Amino acid sequence: MEKAVKYEKVTELALRRGFYFPSAEIYPSTPAGFFEYGPLGVALKRKFIELWRQYIVKCDNMIELDGTVILPEVVFKHSGHLDNFVDPIVECKKCKTIYRADKLIEEKTKKQIPEGLSSDEFDKLLEKYKIKCPCGGELGKVSKFNMMFSFTVGPRKSERVALRPETCQNIFIDFARLFKVARAKLPVGIAQVGKSFRNEISPRQSLIRTREFTQAEVEVFFNPASANNFSKFDMIKGYKLILQPVGKKKPIKISASEAVKKKIISSKLVAYYLVLLQNFYDACGLKNYRFRELSKDEKAFYAKDAWDFEVETSLGWIELVACNNRADHDLGAHAKGSKQKLEVMDGDQKVLPHVFELSLGVDRSIYCLLEQALVEEKVGKDKRLVLRLDPKLSPYFVAVFPLVNKDKLPETAKKIAGSLSCSYDVFYDESGSIGKRYRRMDEIGTPFCITIDHQTLKDDTVTIRDRDTMEQKRIKIKELEKFLLSMITPVLS
Amino acid sequence: MEKAVKYEKVTELALRRGFYFPSAEIYPSTPAGFFEYGPLGVALKRKFIELWRQYIVKCDNMIELDGTVILPEVVFKHSGHLDNFVDPIVECKKCKTIYRADKLIEEKTKKQIPEGLSSDEFDKLLEKYKIKCPCGGELGKVSKFNMMFSFTVGPRKSERVALRPETCQNIFIDFARLFKVARAKLPVGIAQVGKSFRNEISPRQSLIRTREFTQAEVEVFFNPASANNFSKFDMIKGYKLILQPVGKKKPIKISASEAVKKKIISSKLVAYYLVLLQNFYDACGLKNYRFRELSKDEKAFYAKDAWDFEVETSLGWIELVACNNRADHDLGAHAKGSKQKLEVMDGDQKVLPHVFELSLGVDRSIYCLLEQALVEEKVGKDKRLVLRLDPKLSPYFVAVFPLVNKDKLPETAKKIAGSLSCSYDVFYDESGSIGKRYRRMDEIGTPFCITIDHQTLKDDTVTIRDRDTMEQKRIKIKELEKFLLSMITPVLS
Repeated sequence: MEKAVKYEKVTELALRRGFYFPSAEIYPSTPAGFFEYGPLGVALKRKFIELWRQYIVKCDNMIELDGTVILPEVVFKHSGHLDNFVDPIVECKKCKTIYRADKLIEEKTKKQIPEGLSSDEFDKLLEKYKIKCPCGGELGKVSKFNMMFSFTVGPRKSERVALRPETCQNIFIDFARLFKVARAKLPVGIAQVGKSFRNEISPRQSLIRTREFTQAEVEVFFNPASANNFSKFDMIKGYKLILQPVGKKKPIKISASEAVKKKIISSKLVAYYLVLLQNFYDACGLKNYRFRELSKDEKAFYAKDAWDFEVETSLGWIELVACNNRADHDLGAHAKGSKQKLEVMDGDQKVLPHVFELSLGVDRSIYCLLEQALVEEKVGKDKRLVLRLDPKLSPYFVAVFPLVNKDKLPETAKKIAGSLSCSYDVFYDESGSIGKRYRRMDEIGTPFCITIDHQTLKDDTVTIRDRDTMEQKRIKIKELEKFLLSMITPVLS
Repeated sequence: MEKAVKYEKVTELALRRGFYFPSAEIYPSTPAGFFEYGPLGVALKRKFIELWRQYIVKCDNMIELDGTVILPEVVFKHSGHLDNFVDPIVECKKCKTIYRADKLIEEKTKKQIPEGLSSDEFDKLLEKYKIKCPCGGELGKVSKFNMMFSFTVGPRKSERVALRPETCQNIFIDFARLFKVARAKLPVGIAQVGKSFRNEISPRQSLIRTREFTQAEVEVFFNPASANNFSKFDMIKGYKLILQPVGKKKPIKISASEAVKKKIISSKLVAYYLVLLQNFYDACGLKNYRFRELSKDEKAFYAKDAWDFEVETSLGWIELVACNNRADHDLGAHAKGSKQKLEVMDGDQKVLPHVFELSLGVDRSIYCLLEQALVEEKVGKDKRLVLRLDPKLSPYFVAVFPLVNKDKLPETAKKIAGSLSCSYDVFYDESGSIGKRYRRMDEIGTPFCITIDHQTLKDDTVTIRDRDTMEQKRIKIKELEKFLLSMITPVLS
C-alpha cells in the first residue's frame, strides 16, 4: 500500500469496522479531538494495556496506582503547569483564525524557536520577520493560552481544580503513601494507566493528537548515587537497543552494556528500563522504531537523560513514549509546595529520590500498530485487506463458521465456538459466503478461521485457515486447543 | 465485628494497606469526594471489572464501547441534564453553610418532597414550615445548582462541553454506528465501563458518594413488541431472584418464571437481565442483597420497570445498580435533538428501540464487598483481621514465604513464586516472623500462603495454609498448580 494513502486507509477501516470514530458524531458541532473506541478498538486497547502490565508493571514488580483525573489546582501550581503549560497564540484580524505563534515563526524562518519566550518577545519576532496570516491579514497580539481544562468544584464555585494533563502527577503526590503501604525499597517503579486531557489548539491526525487520551506511565524512583549499582542490569546487558544519539543521523543497534560503557546511556538503571520498553513493543510486533536522544533545545531544563521512543509511519516519525530522567524536579517541587517531607530511607541514607519516567501514549500506539499491520494484497485477480496484528493483540483470536446454514452445521459450529471461548476470544459468523466471512476476519486481524463442513460430521475434522498465508489444513476437533495454544507466542520472551 | 465500627475499620484498612485513600492528600485544601486506588485496590477493581465483563458482557455477547468523558453540551441539552440534573440549594445567611433545600424540608417534615419543584416553590415550603439553619440563622433564597462540571474547549472558549454525569450517554449517541459496525440484531446489549463525574454538594462515606467515580453500564436495546418473545429466558427461568416489589416490607425469593407469570416483572427480557446481574454478584460472593422496586415517586417519569439492586451494609441499604426500563426516552430525545434517524430494522419492522439499563457503581460495589468480607476474629488469646474476599477477587491469590532467610530457603521460595506467577497473582515476602506474614496476607484477603521450610529441601514438599480455616497441610511442589486450580470456582456457574 502506498505510504500516502495509509492514513486514509486506516481511518476508513477504523470507521467502517468501528475500531474508533469521532465522539458525538451525530451532533455536527462537536469539537475536534475526541474519539470513541468501538468493540474492536476496546478489545485491542485492552489487550495492549494488559500486555504493558505483564511486560513492564508485573515483570518489574512495580506498584500500580489508579488516581483521579480531577486534581486541585494547587497540584499544578507546584508542578509548574499553571504557569508553563501554555502555548503562545495569535489571531488573524481578518479571517479570525487562531495560530500558534511559535509554529508560524518556525514555518517562515525554518529556525527552531526556543520554549518559554514571553508574549512580547513573540510579538517582536513576528514583526521582525514580517509574518502575516496565510490569508494575507494582519496578526493581533500574542497571548498565552493554558492547555489545561480548569473549572471549580462545590456549590460555592471557589475550589479550583483541573483535569490532569499527564497521569504522572498523581504518582508524585501519592509517592509517600504508596512507598509506605507497599513497604517498598528504592529503586521502585510506580505505574498508572488512565486518561489525561489537553486543550490542544489544533487536534489532528485522529488518535495521534487528541484532547482526551490514555497514557500508561511509569515513574521509577531511585537513589541517584546507586543508578549504576543495579543488579537487574545483568539479566539484560546483552539486549540490543536501537538508539539514535544526538548528532547521529541514523539509529545504531547496540547492546545495553556497550551503550552504558560508551556513556551513550548514563546509567545501568536507565538502560534497563529502555530495554524493558523496547522488549514490550517487540512483543506487540512493532517495527521501524528508535530511541532518539533529545537535543538540549528539545528537552526540559531539569531533564538529564531524555530519549523519545519513536516509530516511523506514513505521517512521519511519531513519538510513542517520552523517556526522561526528571531528577528530583517533581518530588522536590511537591515537597516544597505541600511542606511535606518526601524523602525516604535507602539503607541508612535519607534521600529525595530521582525519577526516571516512561510516559507512553496508548492511543498513538494503537494507531501505529494498526497502520503497520494493515496491508492490501493481490489474491488472484482480487484484492484483500489484511491486518497482520500480532495474535496477542488481535480483537478475536479465532473465528468459527459453519460452511452452510443447514444440515446441523451451525449447531456443531456453535458447540466448538462455545468450548473455545473459555480460553480465547471467539467470533461466530454464519452469514454470507465463506469467502466474505474470511475477508471480514482478515481486515480485523483474526489469526485463525475454523470452518465446519459436511466432512466434520463424518470424521470430526475441521479446516483451519491461517490469516497471513491463507493456507487451510484439516485438523481433528480434539486437537484444536493444542494447535491454537502453540500459535500464541509465549508471553515472556 | 460490631456494625457501628465497620465503616471505620474498612476505612482504616483501606488507608493503611493502600486499597484506596483521598486524592492529593498531601495538599490539605483538596476538595472532598475524590479517591485514589493504591496497588491492592487497583487489583481488586480490575478483577471486579473483568468478572463483570465475563459474566455480563461476554456471556451475553454484548458490544463494548469506550467513549470520551468530555462530551459537547448539546448532548446534555437533549438528554435533559442541562435543565434537570440540578439540586435545589440554599445558604444560611449567618453560618454560610450550603444545604440541599429538599433535604432540609424532608428532615423537618418527614415527608418525601417531589422532584422538580421550582426554586419559588421551595422558598414557599421553607417559609411554610418555618425552616431555619440548624445554627439558628435565616436561610437565603433557593437556587438551582447543576451538578455537571462544565467548561469550554478550544482557544476561543466558545465550544461548551461537560464531563459526562453518566456513562450511558455515549452509548445512546453512538447507538446507530455501533449497531451497524457490529451487524447487530435486536435485542442487543451495549456496555461501557468508565468514569463519570458529578459535582455533589456533600460527598460522603468514602467510595459511596464521590465526585469522580467508575460506572459499568449496560443498555439493552430491544423491540418492546418482542420483550416476551425472548428465547434466552428459557436458560434461566428456574433461577431464583431476590425481589422486593412495591408494597412489600421484605424481599421474596422467587423464580424468574414465577415473577414473570405473576407480573412482578414486566417481561422475560427484563427478568433475564436481572438474573444475569444477580448471578454476577453471586460470583463476587456478595450477600444480603435485594432488588427493590421503586415507587412511582422515586422513579423517573419515563421509567417503566425500575428496580434498585441494593445491599445491606453498616451504612444502611446501599444502591449498587439501578435497573431501569427507560423506554425510548433517550434515543427519542437524541433523534429529535440531532435530527438523525435512530430507528433500526427488526425483521421487516422499523423500530425505535426501547432500552433496559443496568447502571452499576463500581466503587460502591468495591466498598460493599470489602465491608462484607472484613471480619475480626479471635485466635487463642489473640485477634486477627481477615478479609474473606472471594478468591476470584483477591488482589493476590497466593503468597510464598521462605520460613527463614537463610539455608537457601529464599532461593527455593523465589523459584516457586516465579513459576506460579505465570498463572496467578503471587506475593513474595521474606521479612518478619511467619505469623506476621500470615496476618498481613489475611487482612488483604490472600486465600493461600505457601511456606518453604527445611523439609522442603529434603522431600520437595511445602506447607499450604488456608486463609479462612488457618489450616495447614503439606503438599508436593509438583502438585501445587493442580491444587490451586481446584480452589478457584469455575467462572461459568
